[in-house]
Amino acid sequence: MANITKKVSWSSRADESGSAGEGTPLLNGSEQPRHSRQQDSLRGQPKEIPHNEKLLSLKYESLDYDNIENQLFLEEERRMSYMGFRCLEISRWVVCGLIGFLTGLIACFIDIVVEQLAGMKYQVVKENIEKFTEVGGLSISLLLWAVLNSAIVMVGAIIVAFFEPIAAGSGIPQIKCYLNGVKIPRVVRLKTLVVKVCGVICSVVGGLAVGKEGPMIHSGAVVAAGVSQGRSTSLKRDFKIFEYFRRDTEKRDFVSAGAAAGVSAAFGAPVGGVLFSLEEGASFWNQMLTWRIFFASMISTFTLNFFLSIYHRKPGDLSNPGLINFGRFQSDSVVYNLYEIPLFIAMGAIGGLLGALFNVLNYWLTIFRIRYVHRPCLQVMEAMLVAGVTATVSFTMIYFSNDCQPLGPEHTEEYPLQLFCADGEYNSMATAFFNTPERSVRSLFHNQPGTYNPLTLGLFTLTYFFLACWTYGLAVSAGVFIPSLLIGAAWGRLCGILLASSTSTGSIWADPGKYALIGAAAQLGGIVRMTLSLTVIMVEATGNVTYGLPIMLVLMTAKIVGDYFVEGLYDIHIKLQSVPFLHWEAPATSHWLTAREVMSSPVTCLNRIEKVGTIVDTLSNTSTNHNGFPVVVQVSGSDEPAKLYGLILRSQLIVLLKHKVFVELARSRLTHRKLQLKDFRDAYPRFPPIQSIHVSQDERECMMDLTEFMNATPYTVPQETSLPRVFKLFRALGLRHLVVVDDENRVVGLVTRKDLARYHLGKHGLEELQLAQT
Amino acid sequence: MANITKKVSWSSRADESGSAGEGTPLLNGSEQPRHSRQQDSLRGQPKEIPHNEKLLSLKYESLDYDNIENQLFLEEERRMSYMGFRCLEISRWVVCGLIGFLTGLIACFIDIVVEQLAGMKYQVVKENIEKFTEVGGLSISLLLWAVLNSAIVMVGAIIVAFFEPIAAGSGIPQIKCYLNGVKIPRVVRLKTLVVKVCGVICSVVGGLAVGKEGPMIHSGAVVAAGVSQGRSTSLKRDFKIFEYFRRDTEKRDFVSAGAAAGVSAAFGAPVGGVLFSLEEGASFWNQMLTWRIFFASMISTFTLNFFLSIYHRKPGDLSNPGLINFGRFQSDSVVYNLYEIPLFIAMGAIGGLLGALFNVLNYWLTIFRIRYVHRPCLQVMEAMLVAGVTATVSFTMIYFSNDCQPLGPEHTEEYPLQLFCADGEYNSMATAFFNTPERSVRSLFHNQPGTYNPLTLGLFTLTYFFLACWTYGLAVSAGVFIPSLLIGAAWGRLCGILLASSTSTGSIWADPGKYALIGAAAQLGGIVRMTLSLTVIMVEATGNVTYGLPIMLVLMTAKIVGDYFVEGLYDIHIKLQSVPFLHWEAPATSHWLTAREVMSSPVTCLNRIEKVGTIVDTLSNTSTNHNGFPVVVQVSGSDEPAKLYGLILRSQLIVLLKHKVFVELARSRLTHRKLQLKDFRDAYPRFPPIQSIHVSQDERECMMDLTEFMNATPYTVPQETSLPRVFKLFRALGLRHLVVVDDENRVVGLVTRKDLARYHLGKHGLEELQLAQT
Repeated sequence: MANITKKVSWSSRADESGSAGEGTPLLNGSEQPRHSRQQDSLRGQPKEIPHNEKLLSLKYESLDYDNIENQLFLEEERRMSYMGFRCLEISRWVVCGLIGFLTGLIACFIDIVVEQLAGMKYQVVKENIEKFTEVGGLSISLLLWAVLNSAIVMVGAIIVAFFEPIAAGSGIPQIKCYLNGVKIPRVVRLKTLVVKVCGVICSVVGGLAVGKEGPMIHSGAVVAAGVSQGRSTSLKRDFKIFEYFRRDTEKRDFVSAGAAAGVSAAFGAPVGGVLFSLEEGASFWNQMLTWRIFFASMISTFTLNFFLSIYHRKPGDLSNPGLINFGRFQSDSVVYNLYEIPLFIAMGAIGGLLGALFNVLNYWLTIFRIRYVHRPCLQVMEAMLVAGVTATVSFTMIYFSNDCQPLGPEHTEEYPLQLFCADGEYNSMATAFFNTPERSVRSLFHNQPGTYNPLTLGLFTLTYFFLACWTYGLAVSAGVFIPSLLIGAAWGRLCGILLASSTSTGSIWADPGKYALIGAAAQLGGIVRMTLSLTVIMVEATGNVTYGLPIMLVLMTAKIVGDYFVEGLYDIHIKLQSVPFLHWEAPATSHWLTAREVMSSPVTCLNRIEKVGTIVDTLSNTSTNHNGFPVVVQVSGSDEPAKLYGLILRSQLIVLLKHKVFVELARSRLTHRKLQLKDFRDAYPRFPPIQSIHVSQDERECMMDLTEFMNATPYTVPQETSLPRVFKLFRALGLRHLVVVDDENRVVGLVTRKDLARYHLGKHGLEELQLAQT
Repeated sequence: MANITKKVSWSSRADESGSAGEGTPLLNGSEQPRHSRQQDSLRGQPKEIPHNEKLLSLKYESLDYDNIENQLFLEEERRMSYMGFRCLEISRWVVCGLIGFLTGLIACFIDIVVEQLAGMKYQVVKENIEKFTEVGGLSISLLLWAVLNSAIVMVGAIIVAFFEPIAAGSGIPQIKCYLNGVKIPRVVRLKTLVVKVCGVICSVVGGLAVGKEGPMIHSGAVVAAGVSQGRSTSLKRDFKIFEYFRRDTEKRDFVSAGAAAGVSAAFGAPVGGVLFSLEEGASFWNQMLTWRIFFASMISTFTLNFFLSIYHRKPGDLSNPGLINFGRFQSDSVVYNLYEIPLFIAMGAIGGLLGALFNVLNYWLTIFRIRYVHRPCLQVMEAMLVAGVTATVSFTMIYFSNDCQPLGPEHTEEYPLQLFCADGEYNSMATAFFNTPERSVRSLFHNQPGTYNPLTLGLFTLTYFFLACWTYGLAVSAGVFIPSLLIGAAWGRLCGILLASSTSTGSIWADPGKYALIGAAAQLGGIVRMTLSLTVIMVEATGNVTYGLPIMLVLMTAKIVGDYFVEGLYDIHIKLQSVPFLHWEAPATSHWLTAREVMSSPVTCLNRIEKVGTIVDTLSNTSTNHNGFPVVVQVSGSDEPAKLYGLILRSQLIVLLKHKVFVELARSRLTHRKLQLKDFRDAYPRFPPIQSIHVSQDERECMMDLTEFMNATPYTVPQETSLPRVFKLFRALGLRHLVVVDDENRVVGLVTRKDLARYHLGKHGLEELQLAQT
């Protein structure tokens, strides 16, 4: 079971290619004392754990949001003039501008390619259907449609499953984790971006029940991580710029900006993008940072808008701020009344219920996939199967539908299918199925009352719900935003129609488009459970602030109802990957836990002047794989805890070993170049493993002086500190290691991310997750 | 000079009523060692300091955003069940809903009363002018207008100057300080609210160049502070609810919500309100908190909207989301072109320049007022003078203007003045002057091209600029938002007209309304220098997201240009009050400072079991007035620093003394009720001064055991920690006291707000402010 999990985990490729599973540096903390504390429930359990969301993986590293303030860093900062800091600030702005611009360009590229290819596909199928409607033998059309879809999806699934599995799905869970401070392997690489962009084009053109919006967020994040570092490790190019930004603190800030730019480009919602980034990633709110993030978002939506306006041959008409365009809700038709608010809240509850159902089904499906569909070729076949079934179901629905609507002179249908309807009419079911999902959403929002009959909408909701649920989690790049909106818009419009028909004066206020919007919000909220940012995104996408309050109420209700049953979709997938994700606060009832209980101990410490052999042995110890080491001064031979003097990271030690910064060598070669911050930056972020560094037997006897390189003022807490207090400090400052000291400043333990993420509120009060090496 | 400052300071009343100037508990930190360090520049300076923004007042206390985790607190938290925490969470939502509702009601009340009274006033004056235009003797009209205005303003100024000086101005600087963590005396009291509301009505009706929007933010904050505590100390009513919220942490969160609700009601900008609160106040971003703030904002704008729709006899028409309504910019008329962006940026630069000029003038004026206009009666007279001059200038401008415009059938003018114009025409200057400022802004945005001639606009800008500048800082409740918008809209429209006339095809793209909007943003940005929140507020107030990017660019330019000359208006006023305001980050070039240099030392420490007499003497020591005391275990007689065991606050000690929690008494009276958290909450926030607590000579010999009440796990930093690192910890967690320890965990110093706020980047690099008792 544990091995199976590894195969389909986000970082499966790393595990396959060699011994990285062991070689990857892990969080500090030894396993032995942990188990001794968990006598009651966990001891004696079978090795196979039925639900692996009760596990916490030790595989994931933490990001270091805290600056390593060692002497080198302080010297550099002190040398820098005020003008130097100003220049840095300006380059941060330039980087954010670039991030926004490139993200906008990528969005534009995806949009245009999808529109061209999908247009060609639908044109071919439409002509085929029209031909065979007259002569009979529509099954050939069905076959054509299904094969076309499967083939296109196959391409998308192959590149994802075989080349870069991390590019599967929307990428939002991964970006959430990254912004939360967890390093997900390969999530911000160039290769991932390329696969993601190609993959999303294939899956949307392939007619799957997916959207192209979620992947934009991931794309923006990759762009940000690339641009801000001024080099590409994949392309082996170093532009020698932005070297100052080569550390986790700065990189994470830029990735926030990239994610925001992605949201902004996807939904035309720059403010929503900023809020998304903050909701997911911010620990400490910084005004200048937020302002830069906003700048990136603005540039992104503007770039998209500008290039799309040129593409649509209306340069200067900036009315395409995002990939999805909800269309403009006219101010006079969007009025709502006070007595509609209970109706909205009821719809929110329905959305919460349906969302919970969606999530539960998808959870079971994901468990099934983890167990049985973990080989790339199986994954590709499943994706093709889904594509074929989607086409077949759509065709069947259209075929058996007899909902014909007159085709007005200024109809908005792109590909109206006449099928068995009378001349001058079109099949209404086809507007929902035979279309890109974005267009379907827009027609549900804006088509005149009466263009859909209730049965069509009901059947559509039912089939699309299961199709979308099946599709999410396939090995293709695709988002769940648009399918959710589409399901919600369908049943929302149905509600509106039913309300209008049940009241005599109904037709005045129960505008079906309005209810479609509310339904869409409810369904999306019920599935993803985002709050503030989603409200703002919806408001910005509708381009109208009037609906602010109803949308907020609906999202709130959907979240409350949904949370009663099951977590949000992204959180489920994060949990299934056993990521040590830190929530906003420690569980409410965790005040009885103190640092003494949560910390890992004993801690592997290093002396200020330490033997190279000891350091190499410590780093090579695969059973612990610590990442941060308190630096102490120890009376040799004594077993007592020693006084804390600093903290040094594995990555720093690796660089020191690589450059052979040994006391003896420094004495013999006085002119030897002093190690600089640049050496650490050049190695960032892919520090070599300890195995690749050769240390001779003679060198093992040398000494290393860590004083200059250690962080001399690590944050500490006393042993008696309560868990919520430890949590707050850790989360607010984005720490990676927090040293626990006794009242004489001696190291007694170390708190890392997994020690805090282990505790969560379950059905039976506070629960503790089990740690696992998977 | 110092004394004069005290008279007009925000908290002058406290100083006047008794010896509070000395009795107020001050921040911890002794003065002696400080001066010994500042040998070079500060020693030997004359006692009178010419510019008191170089001072940092010791008068202001800090809020305690960090929970005091002592044994009582932990016991209560541990006793509480999961359901208990859920109930608390629900009551937080209820409180936020109430805050929003009441803030909306207050906004509604102000709006209706202002509209009614201003309507009556303008009607009377208009009829008078019309009468005397025909028969001659318009000077009588002028007199009537001036006297009416002066009388109304007099009422407003009297209540402010004599009853509650803190209610003067917009209240935004004070709320900024409060959210930053500085306790401003009496700023969130009920009396302040009443005076503020009445004052703002008087000043707007009195025709001053002011707006009613800024004060809403202050009003919302007061509502929040009142509602969340479940009692009113002024009214001596305790509803025995929300007792859990009676501490700084919770109260500050609710005040954030109140400020957001205020912004939301003022501008119909719920998202802008949330961002305002976060920009000004947030240290640690918490998702649930933000969501609650958003809820309060939404309820607030909805309440206002709903009641105004009833007042306007159009129930259900929710088109009045805020006090100021920019009117709806039609989507097709708001398009801008790429080549207009440089023009917008240039306008941003103009706005920055004019804003800086405004701020400099207002700064000199404020210095003048601090020196010479510090008696309440003088303040009232100045306000009346300004009111009279405003009326006179307006009248003169209207009188000498010959800009007549035809009065169309569907004109939007409320009080069109014909004056010397032909029949069927009206005086265009009067639409700008003879109107509430909100209406004038709206006409500048939306009136047809050609309704204003350039000369009118130029003259109006000039006069209104100086009037507004003179008005801000008067002893009346009033905001600077609307006057700024009005000035900017006027010169922006002027720019638009000039652009249109200078290009042949200009009339197509250079819509004067669009340029008025950009000008308004530029001017407002140049004066207040807000960034993200102001962009969102402007976008929400226009109800159209299309202008997002131009507004952002304009605000950014205005800020950069303005900051080159002088700070924002609010920051100037905060500096003039010598408030220890913490910015987002430590000055960039402050890495060479360490905790050892910035901390106050020696620190007054208390023993875990301390003699009552010592405690009373320590608290009564008026020369130090410490507020927080490290609790240590000291070898008696030894002068060496002692090991840190905890931290206790003055307020806690006061409560302990009041309840006589002495070791001896506890032994003798075994059944004595144990002190509970409730006793601390009941005393919050107005803890009695030490002078009011009687301790007999016998009791002075008793001992007090502080173990149970002290915060046993205060945050600490080592002496070598750099200032930016100390700053980050302090700011991110909203601390009040940060103990500096040596490597054996012995107390060597204490860092408080003033120690960090002292350092700022001046023209000549890092500067240090002087501490003063004023």
